[in-house]
Amino acid sequence: MPKVAIAGAGLVGALNACYFAERGWDVEVYEYRRDIRTMEHVPGRSINLALSHRGKCALEAIGLKDYIVNQGVELHARLVHGKDGKTFSRQPYGQPGEHIVSINRRHLNEAMITQAEKKPTVKFFFEHKVQSVNIEKKELIVINVNDSEVHVKADLILGCDGAYSAVRKSLSNYPGFNYSQEYIAHGYIELNILPKNGEYALEPNVFHLWPRGHFTLIALANRDKTFTVTIFAPFSVFEEEMSTPEDVESFFKENFRDAYELLGRCVRSVFQRSSARHFAFCASTITHIYKGIDNKDTCAKKSYKRYNSHKCVDFQCQPHHFADFVLLTGDAAHAMVPFYGQGMNCGFEDCLVLSETLDDCNDDICKTLSMYSEKRVKDAHAIIDLAMYNYEELKDLVNHPSYKLRKKLDLFLNRIFPKSWIPLYSMVTFTRIPYHQVMEDRGWQDEVRSIHKVFL
Amino acid sequence: MPKVAIAGAGLVGALNACYFAERGWDVEVYEYRRDIRTMEHVPGRSINLALSHRGKCALEAIGLKDYIVNQGVELHARLVHGKDGKTFSRQPYGQPGEHIVSINRRHLNEAMITQAEKKPTVKFFFEHKVQSVNIEKKELIVINVNDSEVHVKADLILGCDGAYSAVRKSLSNYPGFNYSQEYIAHGYIELNILPKNGEYALEPNVFHLWPRGHFTLIALANRDKTFTVTIFAPFSVFEEEMSTPEDVESFFKENFRDAYELLGRCVRSVFQRSSARHFAFCASTITHIYKGIDNKDTCAKKSYKRYNSHKCVDFQCQPHHFADFVLLTGDAAHAMVPFYGQGMNCGFEDCLVLSETLDDCNDDICKTLSMYSEKRVKDAHAIIDLAMYNYEELKDLVNHPSYKLRKKLDLFLNRIFPKSWIPLYSMVTFTRIPYHQVMEDRGWQDEVRSIHKVFL
Repeated sequence: MPKVAIAGAGLVGALNACYFAERGWDVEVYEYRRDIRTMEHVPGRSINLALSHRGKCALEAIGLKDYIVNQGVELHARLVHGKDGKTFSRQPYGQPGEHIVSINRRHLNEAMITQAEKKPTVKFFFEHKVQSVNIEKKELIVINVNDSEVHVKADLILGCDGAYSAVRKSLSNYPGFNYSQEYIAHGYIELNILPKNGEYALEPNVFHLWPRGHFTLIALANRDKTFTVTIFAPFSVFEEEMSTPEDVESFFKENFRDAYELLGRCVRSVFQRSSARHFAFCASTITHIYKGIDNKDTCAKKSYKRYNSHKCVDFQCQPHHFADFVLLTGDAAHAMVPFYGQGMNCGFEDCLVLSETLDDCNDDICKTLSMYSEKRVKDAHAIIDLAMYNYEELKDLVNHPSYKLRKKLDLFLNRIFPKSWIPLYSMVTFTRIPYHQVMEDRGWQDEVRSIHKVFL
Repeated sequence: MPKVAIAGAGLVGALNACYFAERGWDVEVYEYRRDIRTMEHVPGRSINLALSHRGKCALEAIGLKDYIVNQGVELHARLVHGKDGKTFSRQPYGQPGEHIVSINRRHLNEAMITQAEKKPTVKFFFEHKVQSVNIEKKELIVINVNDSEVHVKADLILGCDGAYSAVRKSLSNYPGFNYSQEYIAHGYIELNILPKNGEYALEPNVFHLWPRGHFTLIALANRDKTFTVTIFAPFSVFEEEMSTPEDVESFFKENFRDAYELLGRCVRSVFQRSSARHFAFCASTITHIYKGIDNKDTCAKKSYKRYNSHKCVDFQCQPHHFADFVLLTGDAAHAMVPFYGQGMNCGFEDCLVLSETLDDCNDDICKTLSMYSEKRVKDAHAIIDLAMYNYEELKDLVNHPSYKLRKKLDLFLNRIFPKSWIPLYSMVTFTRIPYHQVMEDRGWQDEVRSIHKVFL
């Protein structure tokens, strides 16, 4: 049987391990962290995940869908909170029954690792840091717990090592590998709303949204009756309007009145927690590094620590494969801003598409990789663009009467023509229509709607 | 006096050294090659350089313009060669007197190094390879001849280390540094036309052009009565139509009849020279690596050597500076395809703009860097796009009657309205109008011309 070496045991790496285990391949997974199942606290991103149709299909193929979905919280609509803290507007995600599921990253990751390990041909190597790929020798180079280099030979090397992928870095020095990274000057901070008298403090089965033009607050329910609350804003807003605990308080009071009352002391403590301090530091560093500064002292005082969290960035590359033995999937191939909730779903669909392509090619790796890349690059580019576009919606558009009308019209047309008129959000979230085709259809829908306007 | 550490003693590094020497700064230049003035043969790119107005202005400011221009060959027009080898069409570059100058890269580079070294505050360190920038410590890290690391402290670090810049690589790991690399599936090979009876074998004072749709041949005169001839083509053309010496011959005979007769045996030897073999190898490797391949053996047989020449690539980044002490100029900041002859001119203008900005800011480095970046990033993006667009012209458009008409109309309007109507090519080549403004003006010109069409 062929052997696959997987870089990274995060969500996409672990799911790929499940797929290749099912296929009967020898699977080795290399992960720089300890086994998260043995850890008390898992550092790194905790931002809530919303599982939608593409992710569900990918989990279903390895028999994990129901188990995961049952551990989550269904979300059926967006609930937009007015500035006065009293008015609300409810926007259903789709037709009755269509919903997304708020799930816990860690729980999901653990379940998939356990699932993969059930097969005897699968082996996880934790605390093994992937360094690079030796292209000439077709080896994955890994540093083990004793700090020595291990050279892993495999028929296929899968880069599932996230946005800052070491595998991708090895490919990026080769001619013909197109690559771009783009930062947006926005960041995010997470907060929590605790249960109230043992119950959810807000309605649980909706996606709570406080859109305020330049910035936005969201809240998603967890199974333990808490909410994870995230504020997205330009760095300049963090720096100028939230630089002291007092400022943070009045900023929240002014803009997110009802959320503020539930968040309580949590708001004040935002800037006492290390991650937030770190973030405020990064925010001010970035604006100072790259924007016009005319004070030498300000420059000189700054330090320029690298940091890998709390910022929004796009990474894209083309192709996703190299020769007949390397493939990038998940964030390693296409890191996107988090505004469409499709980062994980797209990564999971990668695993499914890879599996389908291997089936179509009778496990011929060489054929599979170029065919996969051909298909998947344009879908990745499309969802990266859509994710950025959705930020505009979340920040502002949802408040506009024309947007609300469009949403209503969309759902109305969808009810009448369920096959031929699927709203953009529904195509992305509730179907497996390739993302690039969603983009094409969107152009068509916009045109039709503008004709409607004339008649309405 | 402040100290500047310059990475690279190529064209842009050497010119920057001259500028900072004039300014009285302490200057240290680190270059991985030996001193080219002591070398018999300089490996690397020899593609002809066309000096135009921006480059001339930059040389003039340090008193080198006349010396350099006098060593070059003036080019006043494009001479388009027909497929039959007998018909020609002449397209003047601008108004009478406006011309570009074909010059020798090595000679130019040597002259600038010698010029910079005249000042006692300037020191060149050859055979010192720039490794990276330590951002925390504000040091340039260099490997010297004894293979040991040298840490260079400076008030300003200038990355002039070309398209594969180590300085840029150090910056690219920091958040907020936007970057992209894009390869086009085209490459080039250089040939020579020798003198005929001691004289130029073709008219010397024109840019010879054989545009053939998908591919193109160009020839520029040198002072020694030879011509440097370059063929640009998609990799697939090299692979499919020029894979044996016999194929190359019949390809040239068919497409570039008059050039073929002058090139003589040189054509046949193309694929015997090492660089060309190397190139053919790369071409076939690239197409095989990244295009659809359905033969496992073909994949397996390929080796994947990295190579740094003979391909066409765009690198762009934003911003060009980091904090108050690093700046990228030349190809390190904006590598472009060679089709507008502006790579060097843009790099030279970088030096001039940097000097002008330092003047405006009274040598305040921090202020200068952010102001420079603000201005120069959009110009770099514009010329990168224009260079790619010009490839379309060189390959094909110059043959179209509508293009010829447009050129004539442009020059006619320019004669009547010399201040307000400057053709696109002239703005790029014969003025210092910022590139991004050239792009804006181009939109305007296109519109006016389409109105003219209605009346013509």
